[in-house]
Amino acid sequence: MRNIVLAIQYDGTNYNGWQIQSAPKTVTIQGVLQNAVHKITGEFTRVTGAGRTDAGVHAVCQIASFKTSSGLETDIIQKALNANLPDDIRILKAEDKDMAFNPRFKAKSKIYSYLISNAKIDSPFLRRYSWNIRYELDIDEMISSVQYLIGSHDFSSFRGSGCGARDTVRTIFSVSIENYRSMEFMTFLLAGNFIKITVEADSFLRHMVRNIVGTVFEIGRKRWKAEDMKNILLAANRTLAGRTAPARGLFLERINY
Amino acid sequence: MRNIVLAIQYDGTNYNGWQIQSAPKTVTIQGVLQNAVHKITGEFTRVTGAGRTDAGVHAVCQIASFKTSSGLETDIIQKALNANLPDDIRILKAEDKDMAFNPRFKAKSKIYSYLISNAKIDSPFLRRYSWNIRYELDIDEMISSVQYLIGSHDFSSFRGSGCGARDTVRTIFSVSIENYRSMEFMTFLLAGNFIKITVEADSFLRHMVRNIVGTVFEIGRKRWKAEDMKNILLAANRTLAGRTAPARGLFLERINY
Repeated sequence: MRNIVLAIQYDGTNYNGWQIQSAPKTVTIQGVLQNAVHKITGEFTRVTGAGRTDAGVHAVCQIASFKTSSGLETDIIQKALNANLPDDIRILKAEDKDMAFNPRFKAKSKIYSYLISNAKIDSPFLRRYSWNIRYELDIDEMISSVQYLIGSHDFSSFRGSGCGARDTVRTIFSVSIENYRSMEFMTFLLAGNFIKITVEADSFLRHMVRNIVGTVFEIGRKRWKAEDMKNILLAANRTLAGRTAPARGLFLERINY
Repeated sequence: MRNIVLAIQYDGTNYNGWQIQSAPKTVTIQGVLQNAVHKITGEFTRVTGAGRTDAGVHAVCQIASFKTSSGLETDIIQKALNANLPDDIRILKAEDKDMAFNPRFKAKSKIYSYLISNAKIDSPFLRRYSWNIRYELDIDEMISSVQYLIGSHDFSSFRGSGCGARDTVRTIFSVSIENYRSMEFMTFLLAGNFIKITVEADSFLRHMVRNIVGTVFEIGRKRWKAEDMKNILLAANRTLAGRTAPARGLFLERINY
């Protein structure tokens, strides 16, 4: 048997998240991948992902693995999977790893990015890939606020409903907020003002990044102050934090091993 | 009566082009706009566009107008239309113009841009907005080739089938080819190597930009030489030029009055 590890990029707009659902007819990334693996190997096998992205969330580089007795070379596996996948899911790479490698449990950290388009009109070209905010945002306050999140904390205040984790302590290694004015190039795709929020942590509670972004949003539009982030975190109470930012702006950017 | 002029941005992926078709059930930008105008004014009126973009072609800034007896202020018209339009069509601006203004016949020039993503794998995030070319491309040859197109010429070689124009002479004021490596920012959306081809002309024959891009493509991958562009143009013979580049990479970028 072999353990094939895939690097996968996807536009999550049309999927009900990564994980196969018990409800029939829900289309998931994992389900579509398992069908493609079946087509090229003839085997029914489980594709295990490193991060279980929610409905509508994208991946720049998801890592997943499956066991197979197929003798296909890895570059053939990559090309054959792409030929059997819809164009919103692409295999960037396929490689052999030792049988013990589990992409989820071997991950040292995960990086998620969240893209905000700060513009009066929601761009038709970015509506699938960003959260459009019309309010004027105070970037300095937003940057100050996220410093309180760094380190090991109980992140219950940012835990989504339906989160099954018993332990709610997570370690955030870094958070960055970058602000970019329209690019010279591709002004048509990238007109306006963009804010990118990047969070690296050992792992994440359900909706944790989107709830952090929803809280940073309230601080950016000056409903709350940067220091409020500290109290919200310490309270370990979901009702004190901001809304859940929409899925469309969230990208699983990288898994570090 | 008033003459309302709209600046419109759209993702053309899900539309059968700008113009209302006689075939039933084909969804067009013009048709969707006319329905939205009817909803907010109660009037059935024709929305006249400056450029009749084909199926799948996008607009950064299409200009269109309609006549109305409505007394609504222009910023209310803009907001009310957006509230009644799907999120892949946005009204950027609405203004009153004199009754004689016709966005199509008053245009001095139109600018179309074409985006090529030159990468091994077609990005899930750009598949709707660019043509993915895997071949290595010789940008210098591509740039040399398009210089032959500048000026007034018979563009029959780049005329799509079904083009109804009697006069096939058009004047290209400028063509530019820009090459960009991945942006530092948004590497997730913009990883790779991009080529943007921009053409400004007094007007265009059907498929003219896409047929020029398809020819530049053959020159870029060294099947043809830059000088061949001159002969293809002079021959006034469609069969000598390259393929029609896919609609997904084409944007109506600006109309100059």
